[in-house]
Amino acid sequence: MKTVILLSGGVDSTVLLADRIARGDECLAVTFDYGQTHRREIKAAQAIADHYGVGWRSVPFLLGGSALTGNGEIPDGHAETVDATYVPGRNLVMISIAASFAERFSASAVLYGANKDDFGGYPDCRPKFITAIDDAVSIGTVSGVSVSAPFMCMTKKQVIDLGRDLNAPFELTWSCYRGAETPCGTCGACVSLGAA
Amino acid sequence: MKTVILLSGGVDSTVLLADRIARGDECLAVTFDYGQTHRREIKAAQAIADHYGVGWRSVPFLLGGSALTGNGEIPDGHAETVDATYVPGRNLVMISIAASFAERFSASAVLYGANKDDFGGYPDCRPKFITAIDDAVSIGTVSGVSVSAPFMCMTKKQVIDLGRDLNAPFELTWSCYRGAETPCGTCGACVSLGAA
Repeated sequence: MKTVILLSGGVDSTVLLADRIARGDECLAVTFDYGQTHRREIKAAQAIADHYGVGWRSVPFLLGGSALTGNGEIPDGHAETVDATYVPGRNLVMISIAASFAERFSASAVLYGANKDDFGGYPDCRPKFITAIDDAVSIGTVSGVSVSAPFMCMTKKQVIDLGRDLNAPFELTWSCYRGAETPCGTCGACVSLGAA
Repeated sequence: MKTVILLSGGVDSTVLLADRIARGDECLAVTFDYGQTHRREIKAAQAIADHYGVGWRSVPFLLGGSALTGNGEIPDGHAETVDATYVPGRNLVMISIAASFAERFSASAVLYGANKDDFGGYPDCRPKFITAIDDAVSIGTVSGVSVSAPFMCMTKKQVIDLGRDLNAPFELTWSCYRGAETPCGTCGACVSLGAA
């Protein structure tokens, strides 16, 4: 099966890529440069794609209105409700662009790494959204591209355990939202990684 | 009501803008630079936004795989099935980016000008798609942005008649897919305009 994987450069999408390669998929990894201040994750994504020898595309587009794109401070911790790190419409846009790639390269599916622990903070990681965007993309593309988040019923810890089983290159990933030399250990991404 | 309008620079989206202004909406017009060879439509869109004195954004992103983006010849006439002028995922991507704008600017709706005569050739103009992407966007955004195509039950001729009633600036629009000095008169966009 040919699949397009949204590869952020973080842990979840890296395990997703590892998993699909283990299943024998032919993968194209797509990373988005949406003005995120933690730009290290783009280089991380490239290194991970190279590690697996899969095709990789970096796609620039500008969004805004989030702490992740320089609007306001990145808060500590992981919110149960939508917080300042929410980027309006990010997953919508990324999935849509990935669907365009999928249709051009005859891939049948777009996969992304949202997991159960992401639901609280981000409306575009919830199962209801995943079902709805899958409908919209399959109806709106000629080849009926599907969209799914295979880890949506797994916790972050379960995703990491799967990654260990698959020998995923965790040393190449980047998760911290603050994007300094070393992970801050206190932002939402660091906290959820530390807790897992 | 605050609305984001997908303004291509063609007739349908211009009438849509005219209609929403007549209804008292506060509109933001968004135009997409997706590598279309008929680039005149971008300047046309700006002129139309200026005509109405509404905010206007041009958003660059790269898609491909279509005659409209330089892959192959633009065919004559208007196809009843998907043809070479279909741009994979175009409306998906444009609506998603517009939804991100809508959320940032507290607009409650994204509107686009698909009409009844567009259904045959483009899967992303059909009522089933419009309903599905409306679901996905309203679920996937914090503020529950809606998506609709108010002309979806109207023919192109009815849209043009409405535009005449509203004094829409047709002289500023650009429709021809070939984008030369003057409209070619034979591409799908010219044919459907001529027939209306």
